[in-house]
Amino acid sequence: MSGVVGPIAMSYAALERQQKRVAHLEHLEAIAAWDEATMMSEGGGDARGEALATLRGLIHDESVKPEMGDWIAAAEAAAGELDAWQAANLREIKRTWVRATALPSSLVEATSLVESKSEQAWRRLRAENDWASFEPYMREVFAKKREVAQALSDKLGLEPYDALLDGFEPGAKSAAIAVLFERLGAFLPSFIARVVEKQKSETVVRPLGPFPTERQRRLGVELMRRLGFDFKRGRLDVSHHPFCGGVPEDVRITTRYDDADFAKAMMGVLHETGHAKYEQHLPLRWLGQPVGRARSMGVHESQSLFLEMQVSRSREFATFVAPLLAEAFPDNARRTPGAFDPANLHALATRVTPSFIRVDADEVTYPCHIILRFEIESALVRGTLDVRDVPDAWDERMQRLLGISTRGNFKNGCMQDVHWPAGLVGYFPTYTLGALLAAQLFETAAREVPHLGPSLERGELAPLDAWLSEKVWGQGSRLETDALVRQATGRPLDTAAFERHLARRYLGAASA
Amino acid sequence: MSGVVGPIAMSYAALERQQKRVAHLEHLEAIAAWDEATMMSEGGGDARGEALATLRGLIHDESVKPEMGDWIAAAEAAAGELDAWQAANLREIKRTWVRATALPSSLVEATSLVESKSEQAWRRLRAENDWASFEPYMREVFAKKREVAQALSDKLGLEPYDALLDGFEPGAKSAAIAVLFERLGAFLPSFIARVVEKQKSETVVRPLGPFPTERQRRLGVELMRRLGFDFKRGRLDVSHHPFCGGVPEDVRITTRYDDADFAKAMMGVLHETGHAKYEQHLPLRWLGQPVGRARSMGVHESQSLFLEMQVSRSREFATFVAPLLAEAFPDNARRTPGAFDPANLHALATRVTPSFIRVDADEVTYPCHIILRFEIESALVRGTLDVRDVPDAWDERMQRLLGISTRGNFKNGCMQDVHWPAGLVGYFPTYTLGALLAAQLFETAAREVPHLGPSLERGELAPLDAWLSEKVWGQGSRLETDALVRQATGRPLDTAAFERHLARRYLGAASA
Repeated sequence: MSGVVGPIAMSYAALERQQKRVAHLEHLEAIAAWDEATMMSEGGGDARGEALATLRGLIHDESVKPEMGDWIAAAEAAAGELDAWQAANLREIKRTWVRATALPSSLVEATSLVESKSEQAWRRLRAENDWASFEPYMREVFAKKREVAQALSDKLGLEPYDALLDGFEPGAKSAAIAVLFERLGAFLPSFIARVVEKQKSETVVRPLGPFPTERQRRLGVELMRRLGFDFKRGRLDVSHHPFCGGVPEDVRITTRYDDADFAKAMMGVLHETGHAKYEQHLPLRWLGQPVGRARSMGVHESQSLFLEMQVSRSREFATFVAPLLAEAFPDNARRTPGAFDPANLHALATRVTPSFIRVDADEVTYPCHIILRFEIESALVRGTLDVRDVPDAWDERMQRLLGISTRGNFKNGCMQDVHWPAGLVGYFPTYTLGALLAAQLFETAAREVPHLGPSLERGELAPLDAWLSEKVWGQGSRLETDALVRQATGRPLDTAAFERHLARRYLGAASA
Repeated sequence: MSGVVGPIAMSYAALERQQKRVAHLEHLEAIAAWDEATMMSEGGGDARGEALATLRGLIHDESVKPEMGDWIAAAEAAAGELDAWQAANLREIKRTWVRATALPSSLVEATSLVESKSEQAWRRLRAENDWASFEPYMREVFAKKREVAQALSDKLGLEPYDALLDGFEPGAKSAAIAVLFERLGAFLPSFIARVVEKQKSETVVRPLGPFPTERQRRLGVELMRRLGFDFKRGRLDVSHHPFCGGVPEDVRITTRYDDADFAKAMMGVLHETGHAKYEQHLPLRWLGQPVGRARSMGVHESQSLFLEMQVSRSREFATFVAPLLAEAFPDNARRTPGAFDPANLHALATRVTPSFIRVDADEVTYPCHIILRFEIESALVRGTLDVRDVPDAWDERMQRLLGISTRGNFKNGCMQDVHWPAGLVGYFPTYTLGALLAAQLFETAAREVPHLGPSLERGELAPLDAWLSEKVWGQGSRLETDALVRQATGRPLDTAAFERHLARRYLGAASA
């Protein structure tokens, strides 16, 4: 893969070979994890868990090979011989190596044990709405996370919370995120109230089920094909929690079907297809190297939301999808006349309702759920909030941001997500960073890609894909996130495009 | 897993830990290989090939760890502390380690390269019936195989051909196989002639297709369930070449469907279900250790043939399956009256026709295909036959054993199988060793399991499974093959039960 032949850069070549080996093992991990979620019979779980643990141990050992420090130092000394991609690859290799070697393995193991116990307790206690019993687990998780954050902080020279965030969103700083989120937190509550008020007078027809699973599946496959998913390099299956997995050469997305509501699986498939197209268009020449990977969680989410929110909830998309729905579900179309009319479909796709559960939230209220979590988890890591006070902090923010109360409703309040119980701290902000970036990218594309509206009405995404391929997908991890956003949209990430998008779509008269 | 705690046996415990690690990696290899055959999209092939090559390298490195020699020696010195299972485990660990370390890696790599080139050439040249172009490849393969056989022979103290055979059928000797095969070769030609003559006057009704794939699939699943396949620990899918893969905790069998002939998929599913039940009933406590594995290729094949040939082509099974077929294919039943009558189904399942292709052969003519291959490949390894003379040797034996000629028909003659092009020498005899053992086991079971016939008519295999579980499945690799056969059937493997079985089923009047 490297064009470097000089003796000084031999260490760079050694790094590329080692990274390729890691990528091979991660390929097997990805397929085994996909298999576990989609195909594995229930009796296979224990053996799979053990096999994956051994593999993950091997991947870790390979990723922190003792020679790496010397190789990286020698490659940096010879950096003048590397081209831009190689230099970026070296930067990414070093970044993940520094993180992988920053923590003593005793701390990694102790943290992993605490997280695993806590996640198991959460599965039981959430169902019972039992915050009192769960609180000690959560306290232990955050105690460990603070230790981890401090150790990473010492090594990376980042604030402790930012050191966790950096694991999901390299280069992101909570101070900058706080600015964006404060602006959104100021804008959204009154905006949501106006939208809810406006939608009160609108009538929508809810299409009646049942929607046969096989017809839903065929519709999903047809949409994926029309919207540019490459079935020569991927597939669609069923899992309890939808995800985009596999490897860039063979992307595996999943969904689940609800007989009563076709839109759940359909919008889920469109979301995962957005993730999948990013993976399928990563730079081929650099697959298997860190620079060939998707940039970050936030950028990845921007691609799923670009397709799910920006494209698929537009008025133009409703025009495109209406006849496909009428064809897929002729009985339902007959039973609920008008349900599959484009205007009605668009109205259905853009209903706004403040609600308890993040994963069911619409695109307008969703950021409120994230702002709340970001504020709480960053305060917990900084030590300015105690775990005991999380339910109050949660309820206070739910009331302020969404006007609803979760007092005493832990199950649908601060116990609703797997993230904290599983130790995923610093992950939540990436959802809304993704939503902001999706809007900023779409607004730019709408200026730069000719005839975008008419293309969307025909479900033709090829011009948009060419643009995304040049600006985002084909860049892999060559640019750091800030630079990627600037070169694609001409400015740093802000909330302006997102706010304009919401105003146009939810209050405006013009096409949105 | 081990109950050994004394310091002397620490080396044995180290071996168990290391074998468990190997088993974890082999688990991932099995799942990735299954995925490649059943699920992988075509674009994923190159990346999968590379990932699997890296994994196989790791498995090899782990299997020949430098410490192993010392561990094995120390564990053997402390053998008095080991129980029977542990001692057998140590024997199996040593056996595979000796084989794995017997060959210089330069020879392994050179052989693998020759085999891979030869198999690729064969895929092209077989289609073109081009023996002349293929002969040099086959010459190269057998030249390498003779080198490998000699090196293994020096290390194992076996005849060169037996050293290859030992890789598939530990402990088997070609001298003993030759005795069995000579006896079969003397018995079968005139027997086949008598059966063909007898069947000339019998009329059979061939059920007319098409047989919808989904109905075939459901029938297969239903049969698997009724016959004891545990769907909590396995599944059924589709692949071009049917196989039994996965891991004992999650056994993956495959089939393929022919719209025109339901019997192909059905008999294939029954065959693979036989393999699968063996895997699903291996000794749970020893899974992940060599002693917990299936005994050998021949014993494995005995289990697939036990279900496919002994059970599923019996008159009793025809009685059991007839109503299931009538229910699965009601249109076909109407179109071809009588086709699904038990007597007709039994007649269909026991037609005998000498033919060119091994994989399509019935149970009576099948051993002739194997005898021929065994004689030729062992002579090639010994150097008493030259590759140039293989087509003549083939034709001479086809005429003698089956009364048909393959002169000039290389495609359906000596070029029909992938085994030799791929370097699988010493594998073929295990098919017929399996058939002989299946007959010997079934004959014993028929004596020892009460009411076997009536159970089979109801498709109830539980009593038979309990017997097989005690005698074969639950033994794993504790006993060597000869000992396993003796303790299960009371005598060494011979051809008598197989001959009696054929005589009863194909010429006799009594139930067979």
